[in-house]
Amino acid sequence: MSERILIIGAGAIGAFYGAALQTAGANVSVVCRSELDAVRANGFSIESKRLGNRTFKPVQTLGTASDYQGGAPDYVVVSVKVVEGTDRAALIRDAVGPGTAIVLIENGVEIEAEIAQAFPDNELISALAFVQVSRVAPGKVRHFAFGDLSLGNYPSSVTERTKRFAALLETGGIKCTMTEDVVTVRWQKCLWNAVFNPISVMGGVLDTGHILGAPEGELFVRQAMREVCAVAAATGHPLDETLVGQYVEGTRKAPPYKTSMALDYENGRPMETEVILGNAVRAARRENVAIPALEALYALMKMVERKTALI
Amino acid sequence: MSERILIIGAGAIGAFYGAALQTAGANVSVVCRSELDAVRANGFSIESKRLGNRTFKPVQTLGTASDYQGGAPDYVVVSVKVVEGTDRAALIRDAVGPGTAIVLIENGVEIEAEIAQAFPDNELISALAFVQVSRVAPGKVRHFAFGDLSLGNYPSSVTERTKRFAALLETGGIKCTMTEDVVTVRWQKCLWNAVFNPISVMGGVLDTGHILGAPEGELFVRQAMREVCAVAAATGHPLDETLVGQYVEGTRKAPPYKTSMALDYENGRPMETEVILGNAVRAARRENVAIPALEALYALMKMVERKTALI
Repeated sequence: MSERILIIGAGAIGAFYGAALQTAGANVSVVCRSELDAVRANGFSIESKRLGNRTFKPVQTLGTASDYQGGAPDYVVVSVKVVEGTDRAALIRDAVGPGTAIVLIENGVEIEAEIAQAFPDNELISALAFVQVSRVAPGKVRHFAFGDLSLGNYPSSVTERTKRFAALLETGGIKCTMTEDVVTVRWQKCLWNAVFNPISVMGGVLDTGHILGAPEGELFVRQAMREVCAVAAATGHPLDETLVGQYVEGTRKAPPYKTSMALDYENGRPMETEVILGNAVRAARRENVAIPALEALYALMKMVERKTALI
Repeated sequence: MSERILIIGAGAIGAFYGAALQTAGANVSVVCRSELDAVRANGFSIESKRLGNRTFKPVQTLGTASDYQGGAPDYVVVSVKVVEGTDRAALIRDAVGPGTAIVLIENGVEIEAEIAQAFPDNELISALAFVQVSRVAPGKVRHFAFGDLSLGNYPSSVTERTKRFAALLETGGIKCTMTEDVVTVRWQKCLWNAVFNPISVMGGVLDTGHILGAPEGELFVRQAMREVCAVAAATGHPLDETLVGQYVEGTRKAPPYKTSMALDYENGRPMETEVILGNAVRAARRENVAIPALEALYALMKMVERKTALI
């Protein structure tokens, strides 16, 4: 019998991976809020060079998890964007049964503990998407580049259910990397995200070329990245510090581009400040690690959010 | 015989104080660049509630200091905006005679040494304008609020010529405060400017209400201000640290407004990053004072300038 999967928060990311899972033969349903009618009528239209252009019509298209029919799903995939005030546990509670594995496909660091505490008896799979995918119209999703997923069980291990989930995605065309230490992988991604994302919002907005184009810019980026390394190490997840140089050089070599947070800012959408930067800042405070550059960026982001909240 | 005064860089500030000096009976000429033809034809039109609406027609309206006729002036007033690459000494050299006093009416800290070194035998008067005045059209200047000037000789003292200059301004309607320690007064003004100005450029742009509206914002402002106090103290100009709270509370009580740097940024004009913040940062590095918040702001400003330079 095919796996029953419920995707909660079917935005661009959820729709993209949901389409891949359905291609692999899974029984995929979605909970989506703002575009419910469009998706119910036509499903998702996915444009992707890698996966091909296709329509993804979920088995059940729901406005809330409590409407899910046929018993608890095998996997609940959480791909809601986490902004201040998002209560993910409440969003998924009605769909989580005793045997349901919860899969988080979300940005940020230290995003698992809240879910692990709310569902202590469920398997928790933490996944990071390395993908450039956007919603371009109601129900329409465009995949620009990448697509790989890194995943593992929280806090550490890779179970058979995780392998099965990865195998489905691979069958659906997604390259998966399984890891016994997904928390460290989150910190590795945070090393770039917690630095370039908030900086990119400054000066409304900066692309990676502006950021690394000023000599002071590169020094500041390196300082902030070393601070992320220090926090990660203090939480028991030391990073290879040569990553700092690799990330800087890699970013410099790529054509200038805008981060996801810069795009959110430009488009008036809420930014993932708290999971990408705020959680790193709180981890540093908890572990007594000095992070002056990250603290400055965090304070400036809260001022910018204050402005966008008032608009 | 009336004092001969040459104002170099007759933008809004220079025109405003020049008008006051002329009202007091001085023989006032100007060097202006971009609006030379308009000013030659019609003089400056000044709109001001405090000083009245008036036309200020300089005795000589020049494109360069070397065209000044009738011997060296008694005072050369420098009111050019100081941005990266501005060589003020070169701009004024041809008009400075042995007996000329040089008056700087400019923003920033540590802006005097360069001129003192270039003209070691001339009296140097350093002045800070507390005024809200803008150029609204070629040759047209609008005075919105304030207008007071603080001034004293550099590095310290108040000479007869300084008193005479202040007396002229007072006669022309400008309230002057003379100080034996103008460098400390510069640091006092920097305490607000070096913090609120760069922050205001972030998130393109923030007004004082956004900045102080977020709790993290006020904490960051206070931290950055304490850093300015530490730098000022290290340079031999300790500030009363209760100023930090006074400035924060005073700013909070005023209606939200945009700093001069935010307005420059919005209007695509060069920003005074280097004299307002860069000089404070360099002083801190020279004196080995840790200023992580100011360093972060400075790095971010250089990235923003990188962007504006590329536009």
